[in-house]
Amino acid sequence: MSVSFQVLARDGAARRGRLATAHGVVDTPAFMPVGTAGTVKAMTPEGVAATGARIVLGNTYHLMLRPGADIVLGNTYHLMLRPGAERIAGLGGLHRFMNWPHAILTDSGGFQVMSLAARRTIAEAGVTFRSHLDGSLHELTPERSIAIQHMLGADLTMALDECTPYPAPREAVESSMELSMRWAERSRRAFVERPGHGVFGIVQGGVHPDLRLRSAARLIEIGFEGYAIGGLAIGEGQATTFAVLDATVPALPEDSPRYLMGVGKPADLVGAVLRGIDMFDCVLPTRSGRTAQAFTRGGTLNLRNARHADDPAPLDPECPCPACSGYSRAYLHHLSRAGEILASMLLTAHNLRYYADLMAAMRAAIERGSLAALAATFEAQNDPDPARAPLTPTGIT
Amino acid sequence: MSVSFQVLARDGAARRGRLATAHGVVDTPAFMPVGTAGTVKAMTPEGVAATGARIVLGNTYHLMLRPGADIVLGNTYHLMLRPGAERIAGLGGLHRFMNWPHAILTDSGGFQVMSLAARRTIAEAGVTFRSHLDGSLHELTPERSIAIQHMLGADLTMALDECTPYPAPREAVESSMELSMRWAERSRRAFVERPGHGVFGIVQGGVHPDLRLRSAARLIEIGFEGYAIGGLAIGEGQATTFAVLDATVPALPEDSPRYLMGVGKPADLVGAVLRGIDMFDCVLPTRSGRTAQAFTRGGTLNLRNARHADDPAPLDPECPCPACSGYSRAYLHHLSRAGEILASMLLTAHNLRYYADLMAAMRAAIERGSLAALAATFEAQNDPDPARAPLTPTGIT
Repeated sequence: MSVSFQVLARDGAARRGRLATAHGVVDTPAFMPVGTAGTVKAMTPEGVAATGARIVLGNTYHLMLRPGADIVLGNTYHLMLRPGAERIAGLGGLHRFMNWPHAILTDSGGFQVMSLAARRTIAEAGVTFRSHLDGSLHELTPERSIAIQHMLGADLTMALDECTPYPAPREAVESSMELSMRWAERSRRAFVERPGHGVFGIVQGGVHPDLRLRSAARLIEIGFEGYAIGGLAIGEGQATTFAVLDATVPALPEDSPRYLMGVGKPADLVGAVLRGIDMFDCVLPTRSGRTAQAFTRGGTLNLRNARHADDPAPLDPECPCPACSGYSRAYLHHLSRAGEILASMLLTAHNLRYYADLMAAMRAAIERGSLAALAATFEAQNDPDPARAPLTPTGIT
Repeated sequence: MSVSFQVLARDGAARRGRLATAHGVVDTPAFMPVGTAGTVKAMTPEGVAATGARIVLGNTYHLMLRPGADIVLGNTYHLMLRPGAERIAGLGGLHRFMNWPHAILTDSGGFQVMSLAARRTIAEAGVTFRSHLDGSLHELTPERSIAIQHMLGADLTMALDECTPYPAPREAVESSMELSMRWAERSRRAFVERPGHGVFGIVQGGVHPDLRLRSAARLIEIGFEGYAIGGLAIGEGQATTFAVLDATVPALPEDSPRYLMGVGKPADLVGAVLRGIDMFDCVLPTRSGRTAQAFTRGGTLNLRNARHADDPAPLDPECPCPACSGYSRAYLHHLSRAGEILASMLLTAHNLRYYADLMAAMRAAIERGSLAALAATFEAQNDPDPARAPLTPTGIT
């Protein structure tokens, strides 16, 4: 009826899963490129799909299921104001609008309302705010958020929640979480069941394990097709993020997908998959692609750096993406310095491919029972002390 | 030995030709997308080639020869300063640097020196100027320009000329043209002959037929692989441009390619092909693609216009480009309004395809002896009075 999720293999707390939606199957753990305004910036939909489809070259099972980047996050806040959910619905829905035939998850719009909109007022009913584009007044309630996501045609809909800032007093975190739980219940009731579609609840509760557990218990009582963990990667640091996951994930249903929102850096993904997370979204690979940052197996590179100016080597000799197969670091350096659009196009394609390849490698490692070994190798290659590196606050799109 | 040019068919003054270079064959009349800084803005090289390769789908002869956008204009001025011709030479030349396996024509650098550089001084030896990027002092002589183009590995090299402003007193136009002719001779002498490579002379002389004829005669006396007409499309208006072509083109050799520099709008291309021009370059299709302007069979559209907001129709139902086959005008409107890079990518691809298709249609019409009919239809559809519309000064890249 709704979306279906199967855990195919386990390795410690990590799971290798399969999420079936109205627009195809998503292999998990999965990373979702962010398509803020109905486009993954600097990418064609074919290019986005290609970063995923190529992850699994040579593996029939993966090729059959279109893995990697088969799911895109649309931001309801952006699509609501520009060009309007009703308009997109009238044009046949978001899949058709953006020419993306695979699965789409939309967020509730709450995060961008909190971070971008002007003069927002939160009440029991919902949040009123003014558009950052034209100052027009809007109200976002759980019911309205769900209706918008329905109009967009999202395969996976997110419940509306309040995004608790960090740090905040425990009492504020608690009452915010309780409001989010009441909104979660209204979101669930407002959601119209359709085959291949589902709605996810969002665990809140800041860095307090007891609040997180209370939130998780309440969401399970309501019942959702998936469970997200929100309110993390907003400045608390990776060690704290991981501690919250250690406390929260075991309380979530074994047979439902778990989605860590707005995360993150490659090392964050590895640590979270080890702790049982199945889905991620983050603007980091796309945004970095537009600022000349490239993720490689040898670490992160800034292509603007003069040391690349005469380097005939590809970005990453192991990577088969368009950037690595056709161009030198010298050329990418030149394009980045000259502010050429092609720099954003090639580096975004590369970074999404890197993320998709990392997820594919983790999926394969879980199947073989070797995820811990992959994580140890990854940590040694990339970041000798990841606990020292704060998580990038990456949820803002 | 050098490049070869064959006229395959004639229709009035118009010619259907074939230019063979070290990097493949170019079917003429041909339009050259501009790759200012070693990239056609917002396009991958594969995407640029695809705008051409698809012009001639279904026509084996054309498919065999890779028509349309097989030749790209690199601007020597830009490539000289950033990232440096020596650097590009050290990296294997411009073809390899920008991953473009087809033909490349480079300009002499003179036009950008005149239009972009600071504190330029023109003398008999050449022009000294300061970079608009870092103020560094450079000298561009005919010999240096040819050497740079050799280092870049251009298939087609342009002689250095002085770009006479418009309007200018006849005496200034005359002495400027005479200087350009002396530079042309030095350019020819400096050019190193290589198989599949050639150097073009540039006819100057402003709007004065006798000066144009004197310039053409001098260039023919020197001897070049091709003859360009420079100093047009700089504000004189289409009727004047065409009058200069009417006076100049008959004086050029029948067996050499003729290149009208920096032109132009679609109607300009049609009128110039009717007058015997074989090659064009212009930033108009690429620049327009980045400012939400689309060329279509039904006229030029501004995608930012609100009337497109709910339009489910494609940009041009007859166009098989990626923009027209996957997206609605409503979506392109949304992307343009939102400032999304994908708007530039899709509209540039469309515009280059439109130009390539127009050239292919003209080539076919010449073969059938029906170019006049094509021109009449085109004029009726696009611009009832093209003489009223001034040529866009499009040479600045």
